Amino acid sequence: MRLTEAQLPWLETHRTDTLGPSLFAIHAFDKAHLVMLAERGIVEPEHVAAMLTALRDMEREGTAKARAEVGGGMHSGEHYLIGRLGEAIGGRVHTGRSSGDLIEVARRMTIRGYVLDILDGLTAVRGALVGLGLANLESVMPGYSHGQHAQPTTLGHWAAMFQVAFSRDHDRLRSCYRRLNLSPAGAAILTGSDFPLDRELVATLLGFDAPLRNTMDAIMSHDLEMEVASALTVLAATIARLADDLILWSTAEFAFVDLPDRFCGTSSIMPQKKNPDGLELMKSAAGQALAGLVGAVIAERGPTGFPILERRHTQDTLWAVGALVGQHLTGLADLLMSMRVDAARMAAAAGEHWAQVTDLSSALVRVCGIDWRSAHQTVALLVRRATESGRSPAQVTPEELDAAAGEVVGHPVGLGAADFAAAMDPRAFVRRRTLLGGPAPDQVCAELTRARTEINDAREEVRVLRDAVASAERELERRVDALVGAPSGGATAGGVGR
Amino acid sequence: MRLTEAQLPWLETHRTDTLGPSLFAIHAFDKAHLVMLAERGIVEPEHVAAMLTALRDMEREGTAKARAEVGGGMHSGEHYLIGRLGEAIGGRVHTGRSSGDLIEVARRMTIRGYVLDILDGLTAVRGALVGLGLANLESVMPGYSHGQHAQPTTLGHWAAMFQVAFSRDHDRLRSCYRRLNLSPAGAAILTGSDFPLDRELVATLLGFDAPLRNTMDAIMSHDLEMEVASALTVLAATIARLADDLILWSTAEFAFVDLPDRFCGTSSIMPQKKNPDGLELMKSAAGQALAGLVGAVIAERGPTGFPILERRHTQDTLWAVGALVGQHLTGLADLLMSMRVDAARMAAAAGEHWAQVTDLSSALVRVCGIDWRSAHQTVALLVRRATESGRSPAQVTPEELDAAAGEVVGHPVGLGAADFAAAMDPRAFVRRRTLLGGPAPDQVCAELTRARTEINDAREEVRVLRDAVASAERELERRVDALVGAPSGGATAGGVGR
Amino acid sequence: MRLTEAQLPWLETHRTDTLGPSLFAIHAFDKAHLVMLAERGIVEPEHVAAMLTALRDMEREGTAKARAEVGGGMHSGEHYLIGRLGEAIGGRVHTGRSSGDLIEVARRMTIRGYVLDILDGLTAVRGALVGLGLANLESVMPGYSHGQHAQPTTLGHWAAMFQVAFSRDHDRLRSCYRRLNLSPAGAAILTGSDFPLDRELVATLLGFDAPLRNTMDAIMSHDLEMEVASALTVLAATIARLADDLILWSTAEFAFVDLPDRFCGTSSIMPQKKNPDGLELMKSAAGQALAGLVGAVIAERGPTGFPILERRHTQDTLWAVGALVGQHLTGLADLLMSMRVDAARMAAAAGEHWAQVTDLSSALVRVCGIDWRSAHQTVALLVRRATESGRSPAQVTPEELDAAAGEVVGHPVGLGAADFAAAMDPRAFVRRRTLLGGPAPDQVCAELTRARTEINDAREEVRVLRDAVASAERELERRVDALVGAPSGGATAGGVGR
Amino acid sequence: MRLTEAQLPWLETHRTDTLGPSLFAIHAFDKAHLVMLAERGIVEPEHVAAMLTALRDMEREGTAKARAEVGGGMHSGEHYLIGRLGEAIGGRVHTGRSSGDLIEVARRMTIRGYVLDILDGLTAVRGALVGLGLANLESVMPGYSHGQHAQPTTLGHWAAMFQVAFSRDHDRLRSCYRRLNLSPAGAAILTGSDFPLDRELVATLLGFDAPLRNTMDAIMSHDLEMEVASALTVLAATIARLADDLILWSTAEFAFVDLPDRFCGTSSIMPQKKNPDGLELMKSAAGQALAGLVGAVIAERGPTGFPILERRHTQDTLWAVGALVGQHLTGLADLLMSMRVDAARMAAAAGEHWAQVTDLSSALVRVCGIDWRSAHQTVALLVRRATESGRSPAQVTPEELDAAAGEVVGHPVGLGAADFAAAMDPRAFVRRRTLLGGPAPDQVCAELTRARTEINDAREEVRVLRDAVASAERELERRVDALVGAPSGGATAGGVGR
Repeated sequence: MRLTEAQLPWLETHRTDTLGPSLFAIHAFDKAHLVMLAERGIVEPEHVAAMLTALRDMEREGTAKARAEVGGGMHSGEHYLIGRLGEAIGGRVHTGRSSGDLIEVARRMTIRGYVLDILDGLTAVRGALVGLGLANLESVMPGYSHGQHAQPTTLGHWAAMFQVAFSRDHDRLRSCYRRLNLSPAGAAILTGSDFPLDRELVATLLGFDAPLRNTMDAIMSHDLEMEVASALTVLAATIARLADDLILWSTAEFAFVDLPDRFCGTSSIMPQKKNPDGLELMKSAAGQALAGLVGAVIAERGPTGFPILERRHTQDTLWAVGALVGQHLTGLADLLMSMRVDAARMAAAAGEHWAQVTDLSSALVRVCGIDWRSAHQTVALLVRRATESGRSPAQVTPEELDAAAGEVVGHPVGLGAADFAAAMDPRAFVRRRTLLGGPAPDQVCAELTRARTEINDAREEVRVLRDAVASAERELERRVDALVGAPSGGATAGGVGR
Repeated sequence: MRLTEAQLPWLETHRTDTLGPSLFAIHAFDKAHLVMLAERGIVEPEHVAAMLTALRDMEREGTAKARAEVGGGMHSGEHYLIGRLGEAIGGRVHTGRSSGDLIEVARRMTIRGYVLDILDGLTAVRGALVGLGLANLESVMPGYSHGQHAQPTTLGHWAAMFQVAFSRDHDRLRSCYRRLNLSPAGAAILTGSDFPLDRELVATLLGFDAPLRNTMDAIMSHDLEMEVASALTVLAATIARLADDLILWSTAEFAFVDLPDRFCGTSSIMPQKKNPDGLELMKSAAGQALAGLVGAVIAERGPTGFPILERRHTQDTLWAVGALVGQHLTGLADLLMSMRVDAARMAAAAGEHWAQVTDLSSALVRVCGIDWRSAHQTVALLVRRATESGRSPAQVTPEELDAAAGEVVGHPVGLGAADFAAAMDPRAFVRRRTLLGGPAPDQVCAELTRARTEINDAREEVRVLRDAVASAERELERRVDALVGAPSGGATAGGVGR
Repeated sequence: MRLTEAQLPWLETHRTDTLGPSLFAIHAFDKAHLVMLAERGIVEPEHVAAMLTALRDMEREGTAKARAEVGGGMHSGEHYLIGRLGEAIGGRVHTGRSSGDLIEVARRMTIRGYVLDILDGLTAVRGALVGLGLANLESVMPGYSHGQHAQPTTLGHWAAMFQVAFSRDHDRLRSCYRRLNLSPAGAAILTGSDFPLDRELVATLLGFDAPLRNTMDAIMSHDLEMEVASALTVLAATIARLADDLILWSTAEFAFVDLPDRFCGTSSIMPQKKNPDGLELMKSAAGQALAGLVGAVIAERGPTGFPILERRHTQDTLWAVGALVGQHLTGLADLLMSMRVDAARMAAAAGEHWAQVTDLSSALVRVCGIDWRSAHQTVALLVRRATESGRSPAQVTPEELDAAAGEVVGHPVGLGAADFAAAMDPRAFVRRRTLLGGPAPDQVCAELTRARTEINDAREEVRVLRDAVASAERELERRVDALVGAPSGGATAGGVGR
Repeated sequence: MRLTEAQLPWLETHRTDTLGPSLFAIHAFDKAHLVMLAERGIVEPEHVAAMLTALRDMEREGTAKARAEVGGGMHSGEHYLIGRLGEAIGGRVHTGRSSGDLIEVARRMTIRGYVLDILDGLTAVRGALVGLGLANLESVMPGYSHGQHAQPTTLGHWAAMFQVAFSRDHDRLRSCYRRLNLSPAGAAILTGSDFPLDRELVATLLGFDAPLRNTMDAIMSHDLEMEVASALTVLAATIARLADDLILWSTAEFAFVDLPDRFCGTSSIMPQKKNPDGLELMKSAAGQALAGLVGAVIAERGPTGFPILERRHTQDTLWAVGALVGQHLTGLADLLMSMRVDAARMAAAAGEHWAQVTDLSSALVRVCGIDWRSAHQTVALLVRRATESGRSPAQVTPEELDAAAGEVVGHPVGLGAADFAAAMDPRAFVRRRTLLGGPAPDQVCAELTRARTEINDAREEVRVLRDAVASAERELERRVDALVGAPSGGATAGGVGR
């Protein structure tokens, strides 16, 4: 009625096919809003009952199908109800509501579903890392810095590192969940409504912890969306780093691990190829997440209430990345538990390229009383001379060390053969590192054991969050039952979950 | 000793002039590390005493100046000590340590300082918003969506929105602080050390809550840096939105606010110009923060331990943005408290462009019993007809509404003159919105009052965090005193703070 | 045969539904490759004829439908041919080819189609701007800097600015096209083939200007993809700026333009809303383009030949943005030609807020011989005094100017009433700016007339590029005809275009 | 005079210390503008002569030093002249000019300098790649896809790929230079001036090809800045890829190359470390460039003339990246010419991991008449069987191939021993690839020879561009000489270059 021309087709923004995973959230909001309108006496109980009955019919038809057919995107509920019951009844569903709160409620409920899946995925990956680590407490391998052999460590230590890193992602998303699981419902477009809406009730029926406390903020602020995109970006970056490690380790040159064939692809031209497809896709999510975040930040640039349609694309990206990351965590847990590790090859590499010689310097300090800097320089010269003459770590001798010491500190150091050998042994290197957080097997074992308890607690906590959502779903159905005078027959199509 | 050529000059990465604000963190770490080496018996007490005494001398000279002169960047402490005491003594300071933990300790202590400043800045801005909001509970103004007048609201409601938004930034940074304030010290480059380092002691002396629990993670994982960059990006985006609102409102066309001259600039050619320089700079930080985050994520791409120098630039950006955001929050609090608001102009605008007519539809539902959708369409037609004939909201009549109703629902609606007038009054519009989070003055007043308490709690919590850091500083000085056998004389140049 | 497990379902990367617009390019490459295999004697003519005949059958069925049914994504041609002719014949189509060149050929041909559409869209928008500008040579309006009224200009000058800006986009994309329209065909995965492929022939039949001159580069380098993403980002940023201008100008406060209703949306709650949906969507593409570029750059990070699957998502984004930008240019040209301009309101605004006073300073220099800086300061004081006392530009007098001069230069300046009035007239301000590129109507008229010729040349040049592609399509069909011994019957389903 | 409070210190945007490399451009513009003001009679010749004389004095003092002392940033020229000559004379230098064109002129001249340096750097790198390639036409090595051994190629082919890639960067920057080297001078803030400025003359004296043709565009459009940032991003991404290849190749596991020690760093804890510092820093520029581009795009978001100060940070970033990229290209050329290649190790790797078996499939097609898909599957099974039984490419036999063929095609293929051996020889693999762009030594040699000519032409073209700038500098000095009545005495401090 307001405008005089039909909107151009490419402007059509209310399309059901773009609701994607949020369709069920929209449906639940329709029901919860109607329940509240009845309880507050804003709409006559019999009108609400008629509308809820029709929505129950829709569920029997198939909510997604029925909403797709009737069109209207987030307004498909109203379209359906007007189609079935006429405008005089169906035209009451949107009382006190706006596209604004429909979008924001659907956004938060949908993201909530992804976040819960990701939290479960994180506990799965962390569990797999604990398992891998415990099985490899003694699997010595080279640690790298600047891409070069730095010092020996163990695969167990590596696994424990990623376990700790993913535990931070868990903390971040858990903390974010508290800001996320708040209800915009009733905020309409920015001022709420002059109808006496009960925002707490709708929040409760949709599984939210509470209503957002400022209606303009509920619709116009999108920092939460950026926070979610950020949290996914940071998490995806850690996944990508782990994937990059495994891709490198599965090159012919490193050959530390062999991936299960089901995670690999081959080539249409090169018959020998076994490509790490799964790891490449896992890694790929990091770039998509960052791109989504950049898109979100730039889309929101501008005065309050100016960028509205610009936000739509961000939402699609966010949902796509949310789904991807959840899926990749599940895949990663499986891959970590089933890949084959070549511990012998790792161990051989650990001592082949001088990674252990930090401890030759330490030995000079401890045993021979030389200061650290002189010890370090002495060993540096030893390595340089050996490299120049093509001698390997297994071939160098205490005598060569003395020669180097002669050049650096002016006299031989006289490190005994046993001390020399102990200093040059990568396994002993690792065993000596018993300090907090170090790679000594007992130390890593203790940390992984401690982690296992944390993971169990985290898993239980996610279960509690899911239960709260499921319990809200059941309460909503009970209220609908009471209003329509009949049980739902177990239909769950309008579930609050995802 | 290891390499045979001098490094190219542009490769020099250990430069004191690039340490920036982290120089004092490096200095404190030098001292805490020495204290620990003595307490663990790794270095002789008299050697440690000599080195600590020299560092106290350095403080008297001026730590920044002395370290700049001696060069070596994060290794300037060792350079200085070797220069003063010879390699046989000064060469012992780095025992059990690496560039790795030097960098990471300095990074975290420096960021900690910025985060504390930003938390203080956030409480200042939130306090200013509470003040502005309470002073403008009745200042009716247009609320916007899609850049168009949407519905009347108040400046108080707007201020309350930003107060809530900034409280989320506070939560995010506070939550981040728990992950941030953990000590990498003793992790060396990735495996710690075979010297019996006491990581807990060093952590305590540097004001950290605890040591990080995996030494490889402590050096190689940089998710925390991305999290900080993300948190700054999200916060800066909210600052930018607020700035964009005020920039728009200070255009000649809007003219809702007049900025204090000290926040403005003028022009070298246009004598009349009063430019909102301060707001533009505040807004600018958002782009820099996002750019920094993008740079951080891309720099870290690759297998564990491969990207090392790539990280350096990220750090500079992060520090620059950390400083900027803190400064802008302080400026913003000042600006919000001192800008002039033209409440009369805002109020006049609130009802001039039909923003109030959502409630004319509501009135049709409530008073005349029409369904929402029909009511909405009736009013839409009214607005279209009035717009086409050049009539303003102040001019339309219940008769014109009846005419529109005739076209839409087939009969007049008969809304009385009083109801019509109440529905068309923007002030009444706002007063009717008493629902949770709505713009009704009492509602906003209650929320702002509640916020004031939260802000006081937040301010107190930051004070406690700062006290913990200051207390660690004092403890470090006491231990140094004990080892050198003399009090520091109150020197604070090596402070743990920033 | 190579691997022992079925690939996980979520790893399936060869899916026809992800080919999108590149499906027809794949089809054309299948045909051109077969023609070349026959002409080089690599596959027997009768085998090639059988395969080409089958592909002609596929076209009659509907290429997209048939390929979707048979699956295999870019390998759907081979799947189809093996299904119809058995492996002994159909298994020959991929001789000397790899997924590598299939992907790259399809990518370039698909992007080529978008670039040609965008070049046409650019000429349309530039044409519309010329029209708008010529109709508004005298439409004086405020020009802004720092969001404040800076100096008077005209809408014609504004239109001419965007015409020039879009001409640079045209140049960039035209220059990019020369690097884009080169053929990767025959590069296989990185070394080409030991079959005697004729790369020039395939290039010609697919409408490319020439083959790429290094086979590893053809597959492994993706700088071109980044360049295209960059060019779209820059172009989309200019579209977004123009959209931002019009969004601002269509606010109630500015009200300089009124958008056609077909480019607008309304609200489900606010009956009065007329939202600039079309402009918001146009603006939105800029963020998506930048996000796509960020995604592309990060996806490609790594050693040559390592990131392969990471690239896939980039391609989707690039194609989506390519389509969006083309569509938005067409929409923008329509909008520019049909929006209503309120020239009277613009003109009134031009002199209301002191934008003209740069020329009052000039007058003091020219007429009164005062130096520029003193003149500027004198007028600055005049504006300040007038603002403080609430006097408007229309109210100030030469006497007030003399008073300000007294304070600044120590004596009155004595500017006559006529000179004063001329200096304070925004229309005269504009008319005086006859310098190259300035807003004087004759100057803008000359530039727009000159632009019209350039646009015609540009349009003609795009037509020539399209003709070259169409001519290659026809040549391909002629060669197929010759091999299968029958004309195609006019089928164009396998067109080389898009 | 306009404002009533002193600006806050952190708002000070006109600071000489932030002019960086643009200071000399500002200086040259001051001089060229004065020359033009005199020639057009806008300022009296004697006033201009006095000012030019003072600027010549400034050059003798040291332009950078004098401008830093007098302060005022881009307005330091005016500050200096007023300080020396009083406002009545020195206050005339800014006649007809604004901060707007000062900023834009300085930006373009500064970027021009970087682009010229980068173009020279590109020819140096391309020359080094030609040299490296020609020296390694027969250096067989593995080519990779998905990080796995794909097919044998040569180091010469690899070098030729990067030569081609960098030639596209050259084209992009050369094309960009045409849009870059246009003069904003005389555009003032957006409308030019009512003084009769000669924009062509100033353009000529500053070495620009022509004035920009719309004064609003000259100041307000920043697409060029984004284009430059994009071009640097794409170029830096290619540098980063090359660096990533060499970093990987210099791992202990690959060990294909050994870097000159001067490009490397060592460790403060690990005595053996030789870190590829130079390559890491080269790689690092890619992230900084992308971050800069993101910052630029987001900074410019908004209506025309609104984002002004937001742009300042972009400029700093752009200049930093411009300098970095130029420097890295020079370093890269040196590194490529001086690194040691282990051709024997590369060659051994080329055949060790089945990279050659694409040609075993080809042989089955060519010699045995089997279709490609069956041949490919046969060889795939051969590789799988051999891998499972631990047999290497050097160990497999024609009999094993027949066994695989039996399983796949139902009968042995009978490939003779000589054909089998030829198919399995990586050197022969490469030699067979004589197609356009392939790795056969003669083919690569021809391409590199052709490239050498192109590079010479490119180098000559850059020389011509530099000469044009230098010639403008001389002409400016001649005009200054004429006005001040004395030669400059060879001072070049005000040079137009960089």
